[in-house]
Amino acid sequence: MDISVKQTAEELLGAQDIILLAHKSPDGDTLGSCFALYWALRGMGRRARVVCSDPLPLKYAYFTQTPAAEEFEGQYICSVDVADEQLLGHGSARFAGKISLCIDHHASNTGYARLRCLDPGCAATAQLVYSILLEMKATITPIIADCLFTGITTDTGCFRYSNVTPETHEIAARLMSLGADAAEINRVMFEQKTKGRMAVERIVMGSLDYDFDGKCAIVCISRDILNRTGACDEELEGVSAIPRRIEGVQVGVTFNERDNGYKLSVRTSSDIDASEVCKMLGGGGHKRAAGCFIEGDYAGARARLHEILIKFIK
Amino acid sequence: MDISVKQTAEELLGAQDIILLAHKSPDGDTLGSCFALYWALRGMGRRARVVCSDPLPLKYAYFTQTPAAEEFEGQYICSVDVADEQLLGHGSARFAGKISLCIDHHASNTGYARLRCLDPGCAATAQLVYSILLEMKATITPIIADCLFTGITTDTGCFRYSNVTPETHEIAARLMSLGADAAEINRVMFEQKTKGRMAVERIVMGSLDYDFDGKCAIVCISRDILNRTGACDEELEGVSAIPRRIEGVQVGVTFNERDNGYKLSVRTSSDIDASEVCKMLGGGGHKRAAGCFIEGDYAGARARLHEILIKFIK
Repeated sequence: MDISVKQTAEELLGAQDIILLAHKSPDGDTLGSCFALYWALRGMGRRARVVCSDPLPLKYAYFTQTPAAEEFEGQYICSVDVADEQLLGHGSARFAGKISLCIDHHASNTGYARLRCLDPGCAATAQLVYSILLEMKATITPIIADCLFTGITTDTGCFRYSNVTPETHEIAARLMSLGADAAEINRVMFEQKTKGRMAVERIVMGSLDYDFDGKCAIVCISRDILNRTGACDEELEGVSAIPRRIEGVQVGVTFNERDNGYKLSVRTSSDIDASEVCKMLGGGGHKRAAGCFIEGDYAGARARLHEILIKFIK
Repeated sequence: MDISVKQTAEELLGAQDIILLAHKSPDGDTLGSCFALYWALRGMGRRARVVCSDPLPLKYAYFTQTPAAEEFEGQYICSVDVADEQLLGHGSARFAGKISLCIDHHASNTGYARLRCLDPGCAATAQLVYSILLEMKATITPIIADCLFTGITTDTGCFRYSNVTPETHEIAARLMSLGADAAEINRVMFEQKTKGRMAVERIVMGSLDYDFDGKCAIVCISRDILNRTGACDEELEGVSAIPRRIEGVQVGVTFNERDNGYKLSVRTSSDIDASEVCKMLGGGGHKRAAGCFIEGDYAGARARLHEILIKFIK
């Protein structure tokens, strides 16, 4: 059943021994939202705990370091920023089917919880949690402001994406006034890069090549070189968006080496339909982002792609 | 003489035939602020013109395309976001000494104009211009909102830097409500990169090297390779900040090849004083950013730097 922000606040205020569930591969929004609720509930005398099936990345340590808590059985299970029970991950699978409340902003939310507070108009779940905390009359301490600011800034690419609304900026203003250390949070989340990420970008930039007079940009991630960097999945995130970012590029393609060929990520920025391109190569996807697989060596895969793109690039 | 926002509004409303001066190598803030004033003054029936000694970058075309204006002699000269008359550039040098009003946010403003409206607390001059337009009771049309949003987002690195205040976010919220196309402006300003910029980043990433167990990151821009990219100054902007962005790096150094040696840009992120490092190599600068010159070849310059850094890196 869908409930309002006000009902959600009442529900949380009436609950005892609350487990807050983050999604697997936790990001700034699921953790910022969970911990904002955690600190607020603790501040109001409730017992609460955040549970995540994966380890919490160290870069969030400024709000995830909690005092050693007394052990308690969870009586009330609340998932936060989790669109589907599958996304809880193995470590939290035991909670499936037992979730009392879900707080989320994903339009794709599957409605698995008994109660659901969903607002797809919010740029981040943290934006929704802010409203819930106001309704709960919780004191928004500096650490809670840090949590919420982290959720909002990470889910909006530092206020860059199209999900940002005037309200997003208004809440950011209020969180800064309440003590959120915005500049430092943004530095850690957006300025700092790991050595593994730099190594990945080095490969990507080094392999950058153009076709169709610069209208198509291509990068190649060979498995050998990738393995030597020791980069983890998180450090590969967003790489396939790089070639499309180049001025004048209509189609950006990332070749990812596999056993017997190349997995292609195709991104388009003009009227070219990426899913149409990939369909002709046996793949599929969305209008701006799609994928496919081409068997054989790099030269052959490049030639095959070129052949197809002739039909799309003017 | 320093004047208030209210006095500035009165001054502008009383002026005729206004020339708005942007600084040379124009950026989003000087242009966004100039054109916000231009569109507002035009909307209020005044004659106005924006003058810049350098060509206006094409990426700002969404607000710099003005209707063909009747010619007029400037009667009232107003500089916007120009900290020093020197920064007007050759093409605007004829206005030096004749500037009636200066609107700026640089603490270093030299006070060259007859009247000055200065607020160093504003993240961008556009933030100050917003207040002036409100005081003028100007209608903030969508194009004016675009101008002001552009100034604010470019001067804050998309709301990332420490100059952002709660007021910056509040104004961003209001500008979005007034029609600023925030997502598209941010895409053009931050997502898109020129081919020249990509070529520069490729050189930088390709040359990336570490010293002192990863505590020092070094990149080298050789003149030969740089010339082959055909990159312009604008495309080199911010390159020296790249090595310091790497996690665990205390000192980031960029070697720029010159005739008989290397110009070093030193950036530090920990307690190491960059100006102290550079002073020992005959240079100087600030605590976090400094520069120096080392004669000789690359290997020699690297060795010389290493020798000095031993005293600083633990």
